[in-house]
Amino acid sequence: MFIAEGPKIVSELIESNLLVSGLYALKQWIDENASVSAKVKSITCITEQELSKISLLSTPNQVLALVEIPQRIFQPALAEKSMIIALDDIRDPGNLGTIIRIADWFGFNHIVCSETCVDAYNPKTVQASMGSISRVNIYYEDLPLLLAQIQNTLPVYGAFLEGNPLYTESFAPNGFIVIGNEANGISSEIEKLISYKISIPSGNQNKLHAESLNASIATAIICSEFNRQRNIGNKY
Amino acid sequence: MFIAEGPKIVSELIESNLLVSGLYALKQWIDENASVSAKVKSITCITEQELSKISLLSTPNQVLALVEIPQRIFQPALAEKSMIIALDDIRDPGNLGTIIRIADWFGFNHIVCSETCVDAYNPKTVQASMGSISRVNIYYEDLPLLLAQIQNTLPVYGAFLEGNPLYTESFAPNGFIVIGNEANGISSEIEKLISYKISIPSGNQNKLHAESLNASIATAIICSEFNRQRNIGNKY
Repeated sequence: MFIAEGPKIVSELIESNLLVSGLYALKQWIDENASVSAKVKSITCITEQELSKISLLSTPNQVLALVEIPQRIFQPALAEKSMIIALDDIRDPGNLGTIIRIADWFGFNHIVCSETCVDAYNPKTVQASMGSISRVNIYYEDLPLLLAQIQNTLPVYGAFLEGNPLYTESFAPNGFIVIGNEANGISSEIEKLISYKISIPSGNQNKLHAESLNASIATAIICSEFNRQRNIGNKY
Repeated sequence: MFIAEGPKIVSELIESNLLVSGLYALKQWIDENASVSAKVKSITCITEQELSKISLLSTPNQVLALVEIPQRIFQPALAEKSMIIALDDIRDPGNLGTIIRIADWFGFNHIVCSETCVDAYNPKTVQASMGSISRVNIYYEDLPLLLAQIQNTLPVYGAFLEGNPLYTESFAPNGFIVIGNEANGISSEIEKLISYKISIPSGNQNKLHAESLNASIATAIICSEFNRQRNIGNKY
């Protein structure tokens, strides 16, 4: 099970194909959301004091949901039909939640996490995803094994500090985009399986500038450029 | 004064044009950074116990610096020569720090904050900027007044949920890009002063998807597209 809190994310979870097995909510929320009862196994009316005891938020927010963690197995055929985001050892829960929200915005429906990534269902990630965890399919797989299987048939893009400039790379419509660990980037094991190394050009002419971008920021920029090319082609 | 901690950011601050007025460091750090003493008014050798008492980090990291907060007044002529990032009521310290790091990466040297923005020199922002606060000039100004002054001579771009698609907007090399508050976007007072409303197209075909992007994520995507056009033109 995982925990999600607050009216917005809880209502999005109830509307999704995830299974909400229990709700713990204030009377007012239950009264205002009467239609929900048909879709949820159990609803428990609790007081504000009880909510503040079970809530993980500094400001408890009306309702807390217990949701079943989906058990998904990634089917490589999905990468033939669309571009998949693959995360190699993302450790920060907030980064993972932000990446899930970015994927949802840009229409990437699947994220494959390496087995060393932080748990997508920890409360910080769930809250940072702002409800997007109810719409993006997340998988935990042996990433090197998976990429080795498809490496000869599908393109695998990887974000590096040194690589071809993102803006002149022509993205295929399918395959994988790999984002690496916050401190160390893509591991050497996975680097061997990358077919196209890409980098985000710095526009800073000064010798001294930021050494890198945050992993979720890099993901956003790469997803946006992929989206731009899909919308209007890459005539650089 | 503001506080910055850890060898990386402290050494970047010492190398910058900001004034480091005091260092509190472990003996080992002082021994390894002997050349620093000429550039800093005062260095105090402290024990690990003392450092953990004054440190704001959960894992204290060798050195803590007290740095003078620069008093800067924004000169509108800067916006004639380059693109300026303007922030309207950004409240989250982490977001502001991340935006400073993004600006530094892409070569935006100036950020104008509205007077309601979070303090750029609070410790969370300083740490999130990863040293970039030593290189990006930050100003606090009456943003509506400033934009009203230049509105007829320079372009003012603003990020909205509804606007012209970012990818087909041709950016001028100078002017302002305005990013709004995390929850409410750009205020109605500043909206009147925007010459070009831009939005980040969602690539998601589903009716239900993320309602928005985080303010720092939106900044990154817009700065990257500006950088792309500056590098290779906008031939969409």
